[in-house]
Amino acid sequence: MNHKILLLGAGRSASTLIKYLAENAKKYKWQVSVADKQKVLVQEKIKPYPNLKAFAFDMQNSQEAEKLIATNDVIISLLPPVLHASVARICLKKRKHLLTASYVSAEMLSLHQEAQEKGLIFLNEIGLDPGIDHLSAMQILDNIRAKKGKIIGFKSFTGGLIAPEYDTNPWQYKFTWNPQNVVLAGQGVAKYLENGQIKYIPYQQLFKRIEICKVEGYGIFEGYANRDSLSYQQAYGLQKVQTLLRGTLRKQGFCRAWDCFVQLGMTDNQTLLPTKNLTYAQFLATFLPSRNASLQTTFLETLQIPENQEQEILEKFEFLELFSQKPLEYPHKEATPAQILQFILEQKWRLEPQDKDMIVMQHIFDFEQAKIQKQIVSELVVIGENSLHTAMAKTVGLPLGIACKLVVEGKISERGVLLPLSKEIYEPILQELTEFGIRFQEKVIEKQN
Amino acid sequence: MNHKILLLGAGRSASTLIKYLAENAKKYKWQVSVADKQKVLVQEKIKPYPNLKAFAFDMQNSQEAEKLIATNDVIISLLPPVLHASVARICLKKRKHLLTASYVSAEMLSLHQEAQEKGLIFLNEIGLDPGIDHLSAMQILDNIRAKKGKIIGFKSFTGGLIAPEYDTNPWQYKFTWNPQNVVLAGQGVAKYLENGQIKYIPYQQLFKRIEICKVEGYGIFEGYANRDSLSYQQAYGLQKVQTLLRGTLRKQGFCRAWDCFVQLGMTDNQTLLPTKNLTYAQFLATFLPSRNASLQTTFLETLQIPENQEQEILEKFEFLELFSQKPLEYPHKEATPAQILQFILEQKWRLEPQDKDMIVMQHIFDFEQAKIQKQIVSELVVIGENSLHTAMAKTVGLPLGIACKLVVEGKISERGVLLPLSKEIYEPILQELTEFGIRFQEKVIEKQN
Repeated sequence: MNHKILLLGAGRSASTLIKYLAENAKKYKWQVSVADKQKVLVQEKIKPYPNLKAFAFDMQNSQEAEKLIATNDVIISLLPPVLHASVARICLKKRKHLLTASYVSAEMLSLHQEAQEKGLIFLNEIGLDPGIDHLSAMQILDNIRAKKGKIIGFKSFTGGLIAPEYDTNPWQYKFTWNPQNVVLAGQGVAKYLENGQIKYIPYQQLFKRIEICKVEGYGIFEGYANRDSLSYQQAYGLQKVQTLLRGTLRKQGFCRAWDCFVQLGMTDNQTLLPTKNLTYAQFLATFLPSRNASLQTTFLETLQIPENQEQEILEKFEFLELFSQKPLEYPHKEATPAQILQFILEQKWRLEPQDKDMIVMQHIFDFEQAKIQKQIVSELVVIGENSLHTAMAKTVGLPLGIACKLVVEGKISERGVLLPLSKEIYEPILQELTEFGIRFQEKVIEKQN
Repeated sequence: MNHKILLLGAGRSASTLIKYLAENAKKYKWQVSVADKQKVLVQEKIKPYPNLKAFAFDMQNSQEAEKLIATNDVIISLLPPVLHASVARICLKKRKHLLTASYVSAEMLSLHQEAQEKGLIFLNEIGLDPGIDHLSAMQILDNIRAKKGKIIGFKSFTGGLIAPEYDTNPWQYKFTWNPQNVVLAGQGVAKYLENGQIKYIPYQQLFKRIEICKVEGYGIFEGYANRDSLSYQQAYGLQKVQTLLRGTLRKQGFCRAWDCFVQLGMTDNQTLLPTKNLTYAQFLATFLPSRNASLQTTFLETLQIPENQEQEILEKFEFLELFSQKPLEYPHKEATPAQILQFILEQKWRLEPQDKDMIVMQHIFDFEQAKIQKQIVSELVVIGENSLHTAMAKTVGLPLGIACKLVVEGKISERGVLLPLSKEIYEPILQELTEFGIRFQEKVIEKQN
């Protein structure tokens, strides 16, 4: 019997996954379908692969979705995360396996028992971050524990960035994935564990409380805390650890400039602002008091920017034309500050066709082995091939694709709502990823006591 | 026919209103009932007034509420604002007038047409702030306009504070009303108008963007922006004004110390924190990074407190024992940071039986009259009689009581969901308030051009 695989969503992150599925479909006689709201998008993406079928589908139309899912065996969802639970409920009804690269929501988790009872695999968090971070961390943690090491601390940072050669703007950042997620990143309270104490970082402190990360050959990055690091304490078996932190990487200097937006309220996504005749400078001035001074001076003074940072921050804001009286020309009558900011950034931080992106991941494990304090630093750097097969598309899509193969081949024994934390999942996926150049560099440091 | 008046809610702000209603009931042969969830609370409050009746009632039990409302003519709700719309719907059904001291919610506003058609008065925002601020501002604005003055700017600040003689802690603040409202004050985005431009202040900037207010005989206060000042632009007839700001007053130095809580996330009311064995210092440390330094130093450094403010801020935090290893003894297993902070503050900022509170209100009107730039500064200071008839209870309760009398006597011609902005409402209420010592001091300043 030919296995039937359905990919829902053909957006930016789907390119490499589609290529992987097409190649494996040929080899293993799979029947692969790709569906999206926009059928033309699918048709364009599958053009190089005549063995793939294109479908139009809309999750709003649940009958259509049910019909499409019913005729397949394994469903991969790259849809917006908010839709995953609806897809999962159809998968339960039609008894289909499901894979996503998104964080498990409470709604998804509530389906665990039923999925388990029906013998279904609902494997989530199997992209890059979450995804490859879980796979690689669990492999090293299991190794340390197998050698009777006692884990004391674990920090993990990931960044979707721009490759050094194409790093051409003062923010050292371009959009390689969903711009809205970048603008709204960090809203809420981040939690982590430090020296045995639970720590809370509110949004207004997040981009101030950064850690410096050096990555061999790629320079200095800064990391800010990502969501609730504590939520993985049990899943990773780290109940006795003193320090536990997951974070997001940016190039050095990004966070303190981004914090200006946060402090001024320019990332707020609740309040509406009229946009008629608004200029870039007026948009900025909306968040500043009126003063008898230039906009630049008012900006620096309101935020109490230290003198030695003034030039660097002004340069970044000038690059975005935020002091200019250029009309914004926002396409709607009103918008939230976050929407307007995203509109500006999308013009300035665009990934150009010749640009290559870069994924950087760094894990730091502190542990004690035979009474010696040791540290393992494990690093992954992936450079994109081009603006279609970006490092982001590769590192999100390939774990999903390989996991799909494992499901099809019956290599995963667990059932229910799963994270990729067990050896039967992480080992074959990490192994196959190396064939695509996705390979961690590891060094072990013995610390002096 | 004897008029029947029902007061719902007998909490902290009800004392003076109950006294006012009792005295007028005697004079005008009203029948006044007071109802609360806790009947003992009502019984205690009405003990001095044998002409009043006590009832127990719970808004959860809508049949009980309907029955009680049905037997009265005018309903005054001092219930938590979230319950007003439910009360209003019963008032619509039973055709009763309604008075509240709370901001008009969207839900309340949606009942306007039906209330109007049924000939009902749903008068809101008739307490202190909102309330007396509307009355007094509209009186002066109407006066200026009657004398062909062109209004350029209007700023209005109100504070519920502690009287100078009883101002005995370094925060210069005690709780004279709902402590939860004080802890959560300002969350969201404040909007105001300055030099003709709409300005937004997010929560993380609110307590930094303060205005200094001098009040004759009472010293220096600081004001922070309160909610959406623009929402009154049309209602006040101030469409052409350049500056429009409503704010909240605190004693000098309060805001920058309170901002420490805001910046650290200690006023967050979303995330839960385990409280078992938690000490005051550990609670604070939850919001600070781990450093090889004292908690005080880490605190000052994390918040980048300027050196000249260090002592003042440390003194305020030490008063709250936030650097001490004293157990918190919070009565529940987990709580939000805001709940824990409120628990601490309720012990330290308690209004003692001998304490007197103080209300301060200041309006500043800038206008042009016969080509001369003028300014009117109008100030109100009310000192409480004791811890029962506080300035807060007087200034919230008396406008409600007097408005109730106006409704009963048929002196209000408007119908529907109303604010107290018309002369037929503000004039008699301001007039009668003077009999209780609630009287504004006004000075006119001619500005040099």
